[in-house]
Amino acid sequence: MIYIAVNAEKKMSPTPDQARFLRACRRQPVDRVPVWFMRQAGRYMEEYRRLRQRHSILEIAKTPELACEVTLQPVRSFPVDAAIIFADILLPAEAMGAKLRFAPGPIIDNPIRSSADVRRIKRVDVEKSLGFVLKAISLTRQSLGGLPLIGFAGAPFTLASYLIEGGPTHDFIRTKALMHGQPKTWDLLLGHVARVTADYLKAQIAWGAQAVQLFDSWVGALSPAEYRRYVMPHSQAVLEALKGSGVPVIHFGTGTAGFLEDFARAGGDVIGIDWRIDLASAWKRVGAKAIQGNLDPTLLLAPTPLLRRAVHELLEQAAHRKGYIFNLGHGILPNTPPGSVKAVADWVHAWSVN
Amino acid sequence: MIYIAVNAEKKMSPTPDQARFLRACRRQPVDRVPVWFMRQAGRYMEEYRRLRQRHSILEIAKTPELACEVTLQPVRSFPVDAAIIFADILLPAEAMGAKLRFAPGPIIDNPIRSSADVRRIKRVDVEKSLGFVLKAISLTRQSLGGLPLIGFAGAPFTLASYLIEGGPTHDFIRTKALMHGQPKTWDLLLGHVARVTADYLKAQIAWGAQAVQLFDSWVGALSPAEYRRYVMPHSQAVLEALKGSGVPVIHFGTGTAGFLEDFARAGGDVIGIDWRIDLASAWKRVGAKAIQGNLDPTLLLAPTPLLRRAVHELLEQAAHRKGYIFNLGHGILPNTPPGSVKAVADWVHAWSVN
Repeated sequence: MIYIAVNAEKKMSPTPDQARFLRACRRQPVDRVPVWFMRQAGRYMEEYRRLRQRHSILEIAKTPELACEVTLQPVRSFPVDAAIIFADILLPAEAMGAKLRFAPGPIIDNPIRSSADVRRIKRVDVEKSLGFVLKAISLTRQSLGGLPLIGFAGAPFTLASYLIEGGPTHDFIRTKALMHGQPKTWDLLLGHVARVTADYLKAQIAWGAQAVQLFDSWVGALSPAEYRRYVMPHSQAVLEALKGSGVPVIHFGTGTAGFLEDFARAGGDVIGIDWRIDLASAWKRVGAKAIQGNLDPTLLLAPTPLLRRAVHELLEQAAHRKGYIFNLGHGILPNTPPGSVKAVADWVHAWSVN
Repeated sequence: MIYIAVNAEKKMSPTPDQARFLRACRRQPVDRVPVWFMRQAGRYMEEYRRLRQRHSILEIAKTPELACEVTLQPVRSFPVDAAIIFADILLPAEAMGAKLRFAPGPIIDNPIRSSADVRRIKRVDVEKSLGFVLKAISLTRQSLGGLPLIGFAGAPFTLASYLIEGGPTHDFIRTKALMHGQPKTWDLLLGHVARVTADYLKAQIAWGAQAVQLFDSWVGALSPAEYRRYVMPHSQAVLEALKGSGVPVIHFGTGTAGFLEDFARAGGDVIGIDWRIDLASAWKRVGAKAIQGNLDPTLLLAPTPLLRRAVHELLEQAAHRKGYIFNLGHGILPNTPPGSVKAVADWVHAWSVN
């Protein structure tokens, strides 16, 4: 099988349906509110669980045909307005030298705790070390017809937290010990992660991603002052590097209610927020940007009338605005009924944008 | 040994040192910024670890002499301006019928998941079921001289989350399933918890607590709308019940940046915040109330110059204000150096309030 970078493809005009997501990212008028779901491919789908019986997460992520197949599963089942490439945010960490395994959550057996550890981090040639993601993107683009494909990466803080903690954490004690105790080592580490992340996202765009999302999933552990001093400059570096790429950039974080202005100022065309902020107040705080969010994922487990009411409440607040993308506030939970995902997408599309 | 309710004691005027904390709670002028630390008694202290080799947490909490001893340990070591009674927030849960054990974190073997479970919850006679806490309060008051003693309880949402989840949780899936899926059962449960909590805190006050803190430690899992609909009325019920008790009430929550106005409006003379909100912005949002917080507990593990800078930054923002109580944004972490705790208390007291 030969993979080609999608830039070489003949371009076809997207249908209004297919244009919806990218137009909303750019705050252009849309026919309907676009909707997709973080972690829309995953364990809650039977098709995915069947595939996982035969393949590990890393096998799927590293085999372009399998990653493509998993990316397409939700697209076949639900009327989502974008696909997001199936990958793990720790793949670049592995490329940097992290010994990564899943048990079942991600564990890094050689975490980074010192400046010597930071110096051992490998430089990453994205096309060589992460070529499988790029090939998966190219392959998926060809299979999607005109539906937009989103690429993604972890933000410097979130990826660095994984590298430092090496496993699940509640308090981010080791991460903050490095941040507070060795600020130069911290900047070296995050600077390195930021460069790899920027290269990785640029390569994803070159190979066909039509939008990219930077996930700062753990940034809510920080104080506003910590975010400004230790994290924002590194996220900014990634987001600056993507300017001129021609594709919209979504900057997503959870627990950002305490410093949303700074989070938005760090960059991104679209700001992704979680359910801990009222959508209306977020709109006042992010400035002239699109907003993506922010249904609590646990609501997908709620009885239908309640779920519908919550979806309608969001739409009432936001459907009339330019630059609104419906999504959850975090990823779909494993025990989510697929029927709820479909219902939400249908309700979003049924709602008038005027 | 005979325990007496402290109301019967002869009252003595407190020294200025001893008055500092309660005056700040009431937004009266103080000579120095008062300081105490959530979880100031605990595992980070060698004296506590020694006691724990011979006694379980529940043994300590249920033996007034031991609870008194542990409460006094930080008072002897650090110049804190208040003591907080040593107890576990799940003691009232046990009184309601929860089968509680520590392994090492709290586990409830008969979690509440249905309306039948809620109907099985026991009514609680606080003096009968939780008399050991009241006796510990009375005993500790006698040992403290004039230093104020704080009582506490978990807020309805936080306590109910424990009852429902039965163990550690990241997503509060079961809690939210009950909240969204069975709102009547939810209200029944939280209403019951709120009544027990109000009785418990009133009894603590009657037995000698000179201030009480309501801990809503997990409230940051909620959306602003969820807080308003499902939680705020129950917290409000507890806080209303304490009006007229004559003692200041501290209402503490973490992750409240998205709904701090509502959290403050629910009640309390002092609003406790975590490090995820800038102190200056919190001040604008809580209205005419005192504020307690909000140093990130991981900073106590940082090098001294950095810790001092962080403490001084808080004091610069808040020391001149009426109604500021220095504290952490959450409890002291187990591996905190006791020397850092002492240093922080000293720096706070050295700072001019003018």
